[in-house]
Order: sequence, then structure tokens, then C-alpha cells
Amino acid sequence: MSFTRAEAFAPATMANLGVGFDILGLALCEPGDIVRVVRREQPGVSIVGIEGDGGVLTRDSRKNTASVAANAFLQTIDAQDGVEMTVYKHLPLASGLGSSAASAVAAVVAVNALFGSPLTLAELLPACLEGEACVSGYHADNVAPSLFGGITLVMGVEAGQIHKLPVPPNLHLALVTPNVGVPTSEARAVLPKMIPLQAMVTQTAAVARLVSALYRGDIEEMAAAMELDTVVEPARAHLMPMLVEVRVAAKKAGALGMVISGAGPTLCAVCDSEGIAKAAAAAMKDVYSEEGMGSAARHTQVGIEGARVLNLA
Amino acid sequence: MSFTRAEAFAPATMANLGVGFDILGLALCEPGDIVRVVRREQPGVSIVGIEGDGGVLTRDSRKNTASVAANAFLQTIDAQDGVEMTVYKHLPLASGLGSSAASAVAAVVAVNALFGSPLTLAELLPACLEGEACVSGYHADNVAPSLFGGITLVMGVEAGQIHKLPVPPNLHLALVTPNVGVPTSEARAVLPKMIPLQAMVTQTAAVARLVSALYRGDIEEMAAAMELDTVVEPARAHLMPMLVEVRVAAKKAGALGMVISGAGPTLCAVCDSEGIAKAAAAAMKDVYSEEGMGSAARHTQVGIEGARVLNLA
Repeated sequence: MSFTRAEAFAPATMANLGVGFDILGLALCEPGDIVRVVRREQPGVSIVGIEGDGGVLTRDSRKNTASVAANAFLQTIDAQDGVEMTVYKHLPLASGLGSSAASAVAAVVAVNALFGSPLTLAELLPACLEGEACVSGYHADNVAPSLFGGITLVMGVEAGQIHKLPVPPNLHLALVTPNVGVPTSEARAVLPKMIPLQAMVTQTAAVARLVSALYRGDIEEMAAAMELDTVVEPARAHLMPMLVEVRVAAKKAGALGMVISGAGPTLCAVCDSEGIAKAAAAAMKDVYSEEGMGSAARHTQVGIEGARVLNLA
Repeated sequence: MSFTRAEAFAPATMANLGVGFDILGLALCEPGDIVRVVRREQPGVSIVGIEGDGGVLTRDSRKNTASVAANAFLQTIDAQDGVEMTVYKHLPLASGLGSSAASAVAAVVAVNALFGSPLTLAELLPACLEGEACVSGYHADNVAPSLFGGITLVMGVEAGQIHKLPVPPNLHLALVTPNVGVPTSEARAVLPKMIPLQAMVTQTAAVARLVSALYRGDIEEMAAAMELDTVVEPARAHLMPMLVEVRVAAKKAGALGMVISGAGPTLCAVCDSEGIAKAAAAAMKDVYSEEGMGSAARHTQVGIEGARVLNLA
């Protein structure tokens, strides 16, 4: 069975969860990117439009994360036909919310649906990773939660190395993205290459506490454990304006903890009710406003479902 | 309410669980140390006998782990009376099974019972740590599981920093202790002081996978995760005779994984049935026998209960 047009959504994601550098991530309910594809006889992928990126992203289908991912999928299934693609960016670029991953995942999920869903979700992973690789390296931190949804433990780039962890009920998140660019490459460059053995001990203990808290549905413990990172946040903190002040404001509003989302600059507060998440998002935004900095604030929950097909005809 | 004599048991423990260096530990059902105390009017602690240590342990009550721990307890409760103490060592010294911790814990639990149980289990922790400290430093890796039982996550030396983790049903362990001394100090000295950041990422991922497996009761996953340590075992392997051969033999007998118990030289295989644990223990012992090395092998389970009072009169 095949179709003429398909549209898919893939959510923004938060990698790291503080102490889980390069191994933990979660999908947000919103925002997310949408990719629309139309089947054509000519093989390959052409980008016919990108909206919402302010003209920043490349339209070159050999370089854009969404088209590269879709192309990898088409090669996997040995497709004779190709697609024309439109990308609707609903999440900010270089903000620590997995923008490139969301575009890649939405593209692959859309094209898979268009061709009659020949591959399972897990089988879509390699193509998504190909797309992500052309922007930020071959890793699944953001791709995995965007594709599978929920909270993911990423031990490698094979589907069998990705585990889903329980999502505590009543977990709400407040996110604020200041108008400042933090390229992932710079956020990586400031990390120490070597760390003391004792830092590993502290970090493994905090990750163990975090995973245990997820299984017990204990959001307070979860938030406390997330904040115990002694390696990555201290190295990156100077790249995140007002980090300390935003944390104080979020907690004053009732948030239980706050961490950098991915490589930043988005900051994410962990809350146990929608009301508190709403208040924390506003309080976090106020900190930037008082400094004359623009920012985008939102509150949301973990997206249990991950990427999905919106339309198919 | 007070008594004239008391006797308590505290189990041997396995620290680290492979990848959980310095943070994870578990109590064994057996073996364990037994401490008997008799109340006397004179304050302080006198050691009147130690059995099963081959005369190796100090009888000096200011230096022995059991008496130092008991003394710390007596000071905590401001006791006017003291005790005469006999220690029955049922587990080998310097073998990676938490020998000093078991003696300290048994002593404190016995004296607490003798004085009418004025303190809770959690309140006994500091006195136990005092005893452990005079042998191997102020840390709770072995003391915590010996005192509380089960599988413990140790984030520090306060009772509030110790969490119990679920014990998978049908978890069986095969242990073999070769007749070779590996002082904890030497096993610590060979560890790297600095490690690559990537090793931390791998280690945190493995610990996350291990904790997740415990909650899901998945022994195969648990064993696989335990073996993923890339930092501690590689550094210590040369101190453990026949490590590779024993692992091969254990797995051939059906074990799902094998790690160094604490600082070694005891090796511990993870199994999912009593029959396999029995076979694995025999197979592991055979490896040493073929090399002309003596060893003690046993199979047991996780001791859910931890330390306990055996007699009180």
C-alpha cells in the first residue's frame, strides 16, 4: 500500500537530564517539527520549502538534516520513487531542544508512512541518525526520545541499545530559551577531556538515584538527582546567561530542580504540577526580561508517544 | 529494658556490583560474622575472644573494628556500663567480602540489643562506620548492605544518603575466594586518578541500565550491565588470578555474568537459579584447582534482611 502525500510530527527533546550527560533524554509534548512529503516519480528528495527557520537552514537536500534522513530511508528500502519535502520548523535552532533531530525524525516518519510503512519505528533509527549526523554528529541522545517518545536511556546507536524508562505521573516541565546562541560545538569544546575518578563515582551515584526515582515516580528525588552533575554543568555554566538567577527564580516559583537542556541555552525546570510549571516558566522569563534579554518560555509535559503521522492520503 | 547478654549476626557483602564502583553493594544470605556481648559494670569494651581468624586480627579493643564500633555506640548512648565481646569470624579476611564491616555491624547490633535497642537501625550507621574506618576508611559500601540488607545505593555516609534498590526474584550468586591476599589498599592504589570523560559516559550508562534491570527484575540485563565496567576491573584485573578463565568457566556453567567482589580477590557470578549457581561455583573452583591453587567456593542469595539479633537474654 502506498500513498501520495504524508505529514508527520516529531517532538523537541531535552538531552542529558542534568546528570545523565550523553545518555538520558526525554521527548516533550510540544513544540515539535512537522514535515510534509509528496511522492514523485523522480528518485531522491527535493526540499521545496522550509518555514519557521528565518531562512537560516540550508535548502540543499544533500545537506539538510531532514532531507538527508529521508534519503537514507529511501535507500534503505531501495525506493524507485522520491519525494518533495516541506519542513515546518516550530522549534528554535541551536537552543538545546534537539531541533535537527526533530526535523530528521519527522522526515523519516513521514516518508515511511508515504511508502506504506515498510519499516518499524526501531528500523527507522539508522536513517534518522544519518540526518542528525550531518549537523551534530552520529549520536542518538535527541533522535531516540524524539522517535520513541518518553524518557530514554541511550547506550549506543543501535535500537537494542536504547531503553525506555518510566515517566513519573504529574511530571511537568518549564522551559525558557533566551535569545542567545550556544553552538553545540562550543558547548562540547568547554568540557574537560579527563575527570577525576571521584567525579565518576559521584556521577554514577546520581544517575543511579535518578533512574531509581523514575521507577518510583518520585519527582522530588528525580529533580534532586538531576541537579547533582559535577562535571558538565560547571564546565558549561558560563555559556548560559543568568543560570544561577534563573534557577533561584524557578525554585521560588515552586520548581523542584533546574538543569540545562542539552547543550543549552534552554533551561528546564522540573515541577510536579501544571500550575507550578506555568508559574516557573513565567518567573524564569522574568529574570531575562529584567536584564533586557528576550526569551521564549513554555510549560509542557513529557511526550509519551514521540513522533507520529498526522496526515496520510 | 536491658539484658545481660546478646548475640548478633551481620552478613558478608559484595561491594561495587561491577560497574557500581564505590556506590552499589549487596548483602549475602551467608556467610556472616557473629558477635556475642556480655554486659559488665566497667565502661568500655574488652575483647575476650576472637575465633575463626587464625589469630590474625588484633585483640586490642582500641584497634579492632568490632570493639571500636561497639565503643562508638556506647558513647553515642552515653552508657555507664560496658561489654565483654567475643567475635566469631565466619568469613575470610581481605577477600572482598566486607569482613571488617560485618564484624563492626554485628558488634553494634548486638550491643544495641543488649542495651534495650535505644537506637534504630539507621541510627546505628555512624557507630558501624567508626569501626569500619579503623580498617579501611570511612565509607559505607559494605557497612550499609550489611546493616540494612538487600541491594543498596550508597551516596554518602549519612543514613539519608543510602537507598535500597529492588532485589530481583530468583537471583542466585556463586562466589569463589582463591587463597591469595589482595589488600584493599593495593587494589585502590592501582586505580587511575583521572579517567576520560567518555569513560564516565559509558559508566553512567551502564549503572543506569543496571538500576533499571533491578527494578524490572531482569537478571540477564543486570548481569550484562554489571560487566560493562571499563574503569575499575581493567585496572585491577592483574591482581585477580585467573580472572578471565574463571569468568569463562562460570558462563559455561550457565552464569549470566561475573564480576570482582569489592576489591577482590573473591569473584562473584550472577545466576538465575540455584542449580546454575551451584554448578558455577564448582566450575569456578575447578579453575583454581587445576592451577594448584586452593579456594573456597559457595553459592548463596541476596540477604534481604541484613544484620539481626540472634540471641538476647
